[in-house]
Amino acid sequence: MRVETPAFVAVDWGTSSLRLWLMAADGAVLAETRSAEGMGGLSPDAFEPVLRGRLQGLGPAVAAMPTPLRVVLCGMVGARQGWREAVYVDVPAPLDAVAGRAVSPAADGLDARILPGLSARGDRPDVMRGEETQLLGLVLDAPALSATVCMPGTHSKWVTLDEGRVAGFSTVMTGEFYALLAGQSILRHTVAGSSGSGDPAAPAFVGGLADGLSAPDDALARLFGIRAAGLLSGLPAADAADRLSGLLIGAEVGARLARADAGAEVVLVASGRLAALYAAALRAAGRSHRLVDADAAVRGGLVHAARALWPEIQP
Amino acid sequence: MRVETPAFVAVDWGTSSLRLWLMAADGAVLAETRSAEGMGGLSPDAFEPVLRGRLQGLGPAVAAMPTPLRVVLCGMVGARQGWREAVYVDVPAPLDAVAGRAVSPAADGLDARILPGLSARGDRPDVMRGEETQLLGLVLDAPALSATVCMPGTHSKWVTLDEGRVAGFSTVMTGEFYALLAGQSILRHTVAGSSGSGDPAAPAFVGGLADGLSAPDDALARLFGIRAAGLLSGLPAADAADRLSGLLIGAEVGARLARADAGAEVVLVASGRLAALYAAALRAAGRSHRLVDADAAVRGGLVHAARALWPEIQP
Repeated sequence: MRVETPAFVAVDWGTSSLRLWLMAADGAVLAETRSAEGMGGLSPDAFEPVLRGRLQGLGPAVAAMPTPLRVVLCGMVGARQGWREAVYVDVPAPLDAVAGRAVSPAADGLDARILPGLSARGDRPDVMRGEETQLLGLVLDAPALSATVCMPGTHSKWVTLDEGRVAGFSTVMTGEFYALLAGQSILRHTVAGSSGSGDPAAPAFVGGLADGLSAPDDALARLFGIRAAGLLSGLPAADAADRLSGLLIGAEVGARLARADAGAEVVLVASGRLAALYAAALRAAGRSHRLVDADAAVRGGLVHAARALWPEIQP
Repeated sequence: MRVETPAFVAVDWGTSSLRLWLMAADGAVLAETRSAEGMGGLSPDAFEPVLRGRLQGLGPAVAAMPTPLRVVLCGMVGARQGWREAVYVDVPAPLDAVAGRAVSPAADGLDARILPGLSARGDRPDVMRGEETQLLGLVLDAPALSATVCMPGTHSKWVTLDEGRVAGFSTVMTGEFYALLAGQSILRHTVAGSSGSGDPAAPAFVGGLADGLSAPDDALARLFGIRAAGLLSGLPAADAADRLSGLLIGAEVGARLARADAGAEVVLVASGRLAALYAAALRAAGRSHRLVDADAAVRGGLVHAARALWPEIQP
């Protein structure tokens, strides 16, 4: 067994959760811890003590590391209401700019660097925080990657990468729509609390997907059909949830692929249930894709940034 | 002054409100009353006493009318959870079928008739309750009307009328989307409780409308831009509300007109703010239209039904 020396701490600090990894210079994970202390529940002066507390969770190796301790962070921790604002980098921009524009909050004994998000201005204003680090992970071993990147979630991001530069991106609030429609709209009477099968082969999901993909502009008008099918033919709750999921994902994927380079590689950055559902959508749309695990991508991006921030860290 | 004899009582009983009109045979309104006792808050056995109470509100002329008192009702009062279920009429169907399939709840001294809604089965299940009576009003003086009918609301209805028959219809949950997105989604931080200008000439509405109309399939991806514009450039709350309204209405109108007969007359059945906003959307889409007041349409439909139900009522 090779014993690796800890080189830095990587932190993904989102709205609702916090994850820390103790990393070796070569990108190996030496220890991991997570908590529910997301940015959403913290005031700006709470971040540093929370971080110090969580560093203990990585074990005694952290205390033995030389100070100042190198900590690279991404996500909502850099928002205006976070620990310290890391102002968005405007696209188009090379991904290198993300590490180049990190900010350093003052913290005794810590060399903390918070990565900025990306913004698009002009006719299609847009922002991301956290996903830019996943993109940075994609180009860790492929600096000149060109691809259409699909990053599904509460707010899905679709990114056009052009030789390692972010040419543009678009956010679709698919996960949030799903939650609002299933839980708060008139469709809740039919979905009835079901979280669906999560099975990409479920006929109700496949049918919704086909309808959403074939006519994304018609999807909003098809949603009420879920309620109508409940009234007219007793559509089961799990089928209603699956059909809702299929319609929304199909409409998202259909509309985005219609605007993407037909020849570009499609990279799906996702995990778990969403990875399976979006993979099915891409297949149904006739597009092959490469799947990259979302956690691996964010860790890869933090490694990428750490090597740029601290040149002494090299594999 | 001509004194007209009351011929029947017309009732529009929706989820959240109840309106009664004392009507002459020629369609003149002799008295009107309304209350907030909508179907949504009533158990099945509460409808009859509520109706009797509200009939008093129409004045002494009602007590002087011969019994059984003729009362024609439309709306959610005929839903499964209403007073008595009036089973949907499946389309395609002539509008005459609506009066022909009315149901009669037992009520001493009342000749009450509840009009059914319409349903679509098959690949695009859909239902309406209440709007079919507005359609019946449209064909009161034009029995062979052919038109694309737009009835905006919480759940907008788009109806294809073909020589007095309902060929098909589609529901778009635009009003409900608007309320969910403005009040419950991440966009609420930017909309900040504003109800918008309601001005169809407001630049933010006009811009949203143009974006929604030109690419209805892209509207879901443009919604998050409202939040991004709030973060990046301090988009004012009223502009955020107007843009949200424009995007959703534009996407609805654009997607529906793309599926409508390009040569058909467009009839907009609406009142107040929605009439002005949807009229602007139809104009921006390059379609002329005829505006029919929504209240006038439902009363016209109840007159139409009353004459079919009680042949002694004629103008």
